[in-house]
Amino acid sequence: MSFWNAEIVAVGSELLTPFRVDTNSLYLTEQLNTLGIAVVGKQVVGDDGERLTEALRAAFLRSRLTVVTGGLGPTTDDLTRECSAAALGVGLQRSAVLVADLEAFFRTRAPTRKMPASNLRQADLVEGAEALANPHGTAPGQWWASADRVLVLLPGPPRELRPMVENEVLPRLRRIVTPGALATRVLMLAERPESEVDGLAAPIYARYPDVESTILTTLPGQIELHFRASGASPAAAQARADTVAEEVAAVFGTSVFSHHGATLEAVVGGLLRERGESVAVAESCTGGLLGGRLTSVPGASQFFRGGLICYHDELKTGWGGVSPATLAAHGAVSEATACELAAGARLGSKADWGVAITGIAGPDGGTPEKPVGLVFIGIAGPEHPPVAVRREFWGERERIRGLSTQAALNRLRLTLAGGL
Amino acid sequence: MSFWNAEIVAVGSELLTPFRVDTNSLYLTEQLNTLGIAVVGKQVVGDDGERLTEALRAAFLRSRLTVVTGGLGPTTDDLTRECSAAALGVGLQRSAVLVADLEAFFRTRAPTRKMPASNLRQADLVEGAEALANPHGTAPGQWWASADRVLVLLPGPPRELRPMVENEVLPRLRRIVTPGALATRVLMLAERPESEVDGLAAPIYARYPDVESTILTTLPGQIELHFRASGASPAAAQARADTVAEEVAAVFGTSVFSHHGATLEAVVGGLLRERGESVAVAESCTGGLLGGRLTSVPGASQFFRGGLICYHDELKTGWGGVSPATLAAHGAVSEATACELAAGARLGSKADWGVAITGIAGPDGGTPEKPVGLVFIGIAGPEHPPVAVRREFWGERERIRGLSTQAALNRLRLTLAGGL
Repeated sequence: MSFWNAEIVAVGSELLTPFRVDTNSLYLTEQLNTLGIAVVGKQVVGDDGERLTEALRAAFLRSRLTVVTGGLGPTTDDLTRECSAAALGVGLQRSAVLVADLEAFFRTRAPTRKMPASNLRQADLVEGAEALANPHGTAPGQWWASADRVLVLLPGPPRELRPMVENEVLPRLRRIVTPGALATRVLMLAERPESEVDGLAAPIYARYPDVESTILTTLPGQIELHFRASGASPAAAQARADTVAEEVAAVFGTSVFSHHGATLEAVVGGLLRERGESVAVAESCTGGLLGGRLTSVPGASQFFRGGLICYHDELKTGWGGVSPATLAAHGAVSEATACELAAGARLGSKADWGVAITGIAGPDGGTPEKPVGLVFIGIAGPEHPPVAVRREFWGERERIRGLSTQAALNRLRLTLAGGL
Repeated sequence: MSFWNAEIVAVGSELLTPFRVDTNSLYLTEQLNTLGIAVVGKQVVGDDGERLTEALRAAFLRSRLTVVTGGLGPTTDDLTRECSAAALGVGLQRSAVLVADLEAFFRTRAPTRKMPASNLRQADLVEGAEALANPHGTAPGQWWASADRVLVLLPGPPRELRPMVENEVLPRLRRIVTPGALATRVLMLAERPESEVDGLAAPIYARYPDVESTILTTLPGQIELHFRASGASPAAAQARADTVAEEVAAVFGTSVFSHHGATLEAVVGGLLRERGESVAVAESCTGGLLGGRLTSVPGASQFFRGGLICYHDELKTGWGGVSPATLAAHGAVSEATACELAAGARLGSKADWGVAITGIAGPDGGTPEKPVGLVFIGIAGPEHPPVAVRREFWGERERIRGLSTQAALNRLRLTLAGGL
């Protein structure tokens, strides 16, 4: 089966600073993959005519489809039109229809302002190209196709680019690409180190060289395994990706919390909803992040009651229901305190379940007995007396806090699923 | 003044999926900029020998410095060594020193395992290249320099790449680049729309064409303005960037919450610390995100007491101290409830300040009178009776929640700074 390949060229000097990364290409890759088009290269070029022309010429020679994003604005910095024409060895032609469109756009949006003459540059089409409508801005896209090459020019802002891809580009591509598809399957794993996951999964990937397998750490304590397969139809491609994914999933048992890319908080929320139960949290070092994750799920009010952020020790006793004797004997970061906080959150909110996190996120506050990274996760539930697990994490403050919320959600998931 | 230019080539098929973006290049750009080296192009190439060789040859011809990341592992997919040699038109030479290093590394880390023969590929150096030590992995980097070209090969994992850049690459570059520097200044603005900021700032940028100005929305409700200038020395470059930044800052008054890229939560924490005061929160729709942001600041225990996540209405009265009469008369999302929650958080925690958020984050729960996006921020403090402000946001659930925490932090900042 022969699939189309594509290159993406992102234009703009701001994409060459330390602060901004090209993210349009991720969206474009996802969309092109649904048609079976693989992205084989990406380039970022500044507002530099010579380099841009060279980049476009090279992409155009190598790849069946070249998608260019950005550089279609009205200013002299915007060189994508000129450089595309130069790369193809053709000229630019001003479109009377586009001039009329621009004038109409300006009359509607800025009736008292005259359209700056520079805006007319946006009516220039690469010779042989078709304009792609942009209802969200003044820069039309462009579509240029020969028997074996396609060049697409798109505006940089995602709110203009995305509808143009969906409404203008994908329908045109569907009419000409070889039927076929790329399909993806995503396994989500909690609390397994990347090196261990890789070591166990790699021998399986190796037996499926036609399936592209990728391992990613997407949150502290969260591994994603992506499997991408091609096939004559979306169903055939999906079946192939599924085969590898399920063989890998079997190795990791209950560490796999989703077979379809769901978030851990959504999985936990789903389990609670199924049981008609609710949860409340008590957080110390995570300061609300666990509640923040649980409430990121739309409809969280069906399973989330609320929480207590007991950052200061006085609030662990005052709000969290920890007895002063426990605090004095074991300290704030202890199994006993985690248990009492979990019970306190549960009882104080009338939730079915209480989950507590208490630990030392650093950089300060560690001692030889209780180092930075020491965290206890407490869980209390109906017919489930409070229990706590101890974790020793390492790394930066935000990593430790992320690992803590991950461990808390995963403990609750395993408890609800009957695995603990 | 003539500065060096550089290109970055990121190698790896995983960087051509819809899920992963090359972020090493942001770090590299930042580091190279400190030496006055501008990045003029970036490429991403998969594990494809022909395309990689072509990409390296093109970069090497165009740019004084080419930095390659990834593809230095031991597997047959790892082609950076071979392709770099091919692009330069030289061969590979196996280094006896590197072979000994690899054997020693394996003896230490995996004494019972024999080193796989494939690992010896990592001892192959591009002819004329010097090895760069990698204390964090088995793949050494490589440094190749002629009179007017430098090629640097670096491992892909950031924990291996970053120390190698700092300890091996930057010292070598410092010895050969033209003295000069690029300097950056970052203004942070809260609660101003990007289009408005751009409209007011652009005429100022235009008068400083030598300073590169970039506008970014980095969080919902947060704009960053980056100014990058070059100069004969770091001080001269900094002075130039500062001039533009301060002129722009003057236009935006108190909307600028940091002149040096600090986070809003760190600025609020700093103001509280200066006054020796503390804060507590009460959150409904944000479910703990405000507490999560405040406690992301190291040393937060100096100014943060805790919080109440009153997601269910029963907890707004039970924990948050809202009177049932207020809730019945005005509803959970109202000015009156926001004020009582702020007061309740403050009194219940003995904090000096209380900040509350109550709103409708969606996608469900909106009504014609109280649509999705309606949010009230309450603030109560010493000699500051509870007040609340109303906001009407639009967009997705996570955007509305992000805008809500931003508005709450910014209200507290302006109140503490005496601006309200």
